[in-house]
Amino acid sequence: MEPSTALLTDLYQLTMLDAYRQSGMTSPAVFELFVRRLPPERGYLMAAGLEQALEYLENLRFSWSELEWLADCGHFDQQFVDWLADLKFTGDVWGLREGEVFFANEPILRVEAPLPQAQLVESRLINIVHFQTLLASKAARVVMAAGGRTLVDFGMRRAHGAEAALWAARASYIAGFDGSATVEAARQFGVPIFGTMAHSFIQAHDSESQAFLDFARARPEGLVLLIDTYDVESAVRKVIEMTPLLESEGIVVRALRLDSGDLAAGSRLIRRLLDEAGRREIGIFLSGDLDEHKVAEVCAAGVPATGFGVGTRLDVSADAPSLDIAYKLQAYAGSPRRKRSPGKATWPGAKQVFREIGADGRIGRDTIGCDGEALPGRRLVEMVMSAGHRIDDSPSLGEVRAHAADCLASLPERCRSLDDPSALTAMVSEDLRRLADEADASVQS
Amino acid sequence: MEPSTALLTDLYQLTMLDAYRQSGMTSPAVFELFVRRLPPERGYLMAAGLEQALEYLENLRFSWSELEWLADCGHFDQQFVDWLADLKFTGDVWGLREGEVFFANEPILRVEAPLPQAQLVESRLINIVHFQTLLASKAARVVMAAGGRTLVDFGMRRAHGAEAALWAARASYIAGFDGSATVEAARQFGVPIFGTMAHSFIQAHDSESQAFLDFARARPEGLVLLIDTYDVESAVRKVIEMTPLLESEGIVVRALRLDSGDLAAGSRLIRRLLDEAGRREIGIFLSGDLDEHKVAEVCAAGVPATGFGVGTRLDVSADAPSLDIAYKLQAYAGSPRRKRSPGKATWPGAKQVFREIGADGRIGRDTIGCDGEALPGRRLVEMVMSAGHRIDDSPSLGEVRAHAADCLASLPERCRSLDDPSALTAMVSEDLRRLADEADASVQS
Repeated sequence: MEPSTALLTDLYQLTMLDAYRQSGMTSPAVFELFVRRLPPERGYLMAAGLEQALEYLENLRFSWSELEWLADCGHFDQQFVDWLADLKFTGDVWGLREGEVFFANEPILRVEAPLPQAQLVESRLINIVHFQTLLASKAARVVMAAGGRTLVDFGMRRAHGAEAALWAARASYIAGFDGSATVEAARQFGVPIFGTMAHSFIQAHDSESQAFLDFARARPEGLVLLIDTYDVESAVRKVIEMTPLLESEGIVVRALRLDSGDLAAGSRLIRRLLDEAGRREIGIFLSGDLDEHKVAEVCAAGVPATGFGVGTRLDVSADAPSLDIAYKLQAYAGSPRRKRSPGKATWPGAKQVFREIGADGRIGRDTIGCDGEALPGRRLVEMVMSAGHRIDDSPSLGEVRAHAADCLASLPERCRSLDDPSALTAMVSEDLRRLADEADASVQS
Repeated sequence: MEPSTALLTDLYQLTMLDAYRQSGMTSPAVFELFVRRLPPERGYLMAAGLEQALEYLENLRFSWSELEWLADCGHFDQQFVDWLADLKFTGDVWGLREGEVFFANEPILRVEAPLPQAQLVESRLINIVHFQTLLASKAARVVMAAGGRTLVDFGMRRAHGAEAALWAARASYIAGFDGSATVEAARQFGVPIFGTMAHSFIQAHDSESQAFLDFARARPEGLVLLIDTYDVESAVRKVIEMTPLLESEGIVVRALRLDSGDLAAGSRLIRRLLDEAGRREIGIFLSGDLDEHKVAEVCAAGVPATGFGVGTRLDVSADAPSLDIAYKLQAYAGSPRRKRSPGKATWPGAKQVFREIGADGRIGRDTIGCDGEALPGRRLVEMVMSAGHRIDDSPSLGEVRAHAADCLASLPERCRSLDDPSALTAMVSEDLRRLADEADASVQS
């Protein structure tokens, strides 16, 4: 059975929809998606996932088999199920461009739609935007650490399921990775794919040399040989020895891959052996439990690596595997609303982020204001969907990636720090503070 | 475009397949899936995901559109693509039952198939079994902490994509959760679903009392009201005040939900107010950044909670978001093989786990031996697939859940500790040690 997207929601969303229906509460609502606070390990976040969010909203329908299941599941009556049969998303959506960098409390997405529609989509919208934003934000840190060396996402196997694997490839490419090992990410999104070889290939052969030869002949382009299945030094010597034979067949060894042990010492040994043999053109590709800190360490130590495969720690965002992201009601039927729960209070109403750039070309100040306000700076929140339909064609992944690179270049140094980042705190406009007081006064709490 | 499962693999798997095809290496291979070492936060792991793994193997085919894409992607020639068109999985599979507890180096899954087939499936098999095992293992800790109180998975929104959300619901139910809020998990897997209400429902109303009334009337069964949108004490008093009216309409308030602030102090206040009003039957349901440690703390402090919604920290396994899981070649064409990379060496050959139970009914000793060995204890690794087809009908999710409960009950205390767990180390049989020496001697490394 294909997983449903309409039923990929929390039960209470459907229950609340039924209550809204029964009490006729279908006036326009404004919800915003934002991160309450950044993990201590992050000095900025990078928005990603808008494309899939809009796709979800455009295609949202309850299929006949889903409706049938709902009618039989014991939680709902037929009247409600009939009402759901006609439901689709007819609202307007605003959001940050994919690749935009942002900070706490800045709206990533704003949904304006009849209350039941805007409510229903909460769980899946968060699910989509949270993960890709989490991954783009993690990947951007690795990109900064790698200083232009090749970066490939190797994390599919330990990503949390299929969708996470595919979206990790997409989000890390947006953030500046060169590509991924995940084949389906190329088919779905056009992410460039890269591959080397596995230890099992070497092990299946009786001799390591024969394994290298077989692989080189089957895979003459962009050849990367894995040299740590048994003994690194002897494997490198085997490669050096067979290089003239490979060359006579038109095969060029592009790089050697080291996946275990002391990567710094190992890659220095490999470099020395290769250089002594006059093979300066062969690169060194490192993998194995890497993250931005290890990549930065390797680069700082002058280790002669030309590229990195970054897997698990990237794909699960190991140091910060979730964001404190929320989708909250900001207005209903024209009245501003907000939550005042301790530690979870929000700013009411439809909002805009005004970004001012300093004389150094870096972000100087972000101000969160009311949507209609005239404040200085670039407006980050753009309209992307009107009455349930996308306004423009989506930018290509290449365009998104280029925008992301510009955004990363505009970050102040304190945000970019890997070890002790410090995020910007957006200012809050006077008008927005007044609106919050109004919202508090209007509710009989 | 529907995501492909055949192309949900790493590029190097396809490249290696092409090399195996070209050099005619299609003899039987034995691969095993196992965890190299447990995260320090885990004293045991619980196997899950076998059902989806077998489903994947049974249905593995390259569709026409996938083959067409492969032929056009620039990485492969037509001969290889034609060869892939005929590929399906025809091998045998052994594995741990879902819900089984296990430790480092014990095989979770063993695949015996022609080398190209057994190689191709590596990435997705790991992806499937890793996440569900990760989640069942995390959820089992929460179950132990909750001491029989109701537990509901609330994590869909911050799980890493759709598949993670659905599998988190399934895996946590196996481990002993009562159910999930994720509707599609009920449709896909029959996981019981539970729901309360969101702050936005209260905020959308002009008055909190009216919101409670509307919701109660639309949702008279299993009613849980959320009382922390504005002020907890005043919300509880409103509920108490309206209870006679609700009762006159046949509506029973089952519990109040607290989602923010000091959960211990808040739930004591709620309990006191309810008890003073003679409402001892109304339960208290807690949520908000919970994990096994907070649940244990609340229970140890005698806080009067009757249930918990556990979300993000469960669904991303926040304290250990990945396992050091690997799928390694153990034999090819009848010869044992192993990898000797530093820190990543493996035991060769097809293996079995022999579990001995002590006089106290708890696990006394696990021994990893060669598959054919006659050692004392229950054999944990069972045959589940023959020549590409499942041997038996799958157990129901209820049967799996019952087996999981038995397994958890058999864990020694030192494994069960939440704060400082200590895992068992499986013994290694003499025969297996001899086989490892043989494997080392047979390879020209």
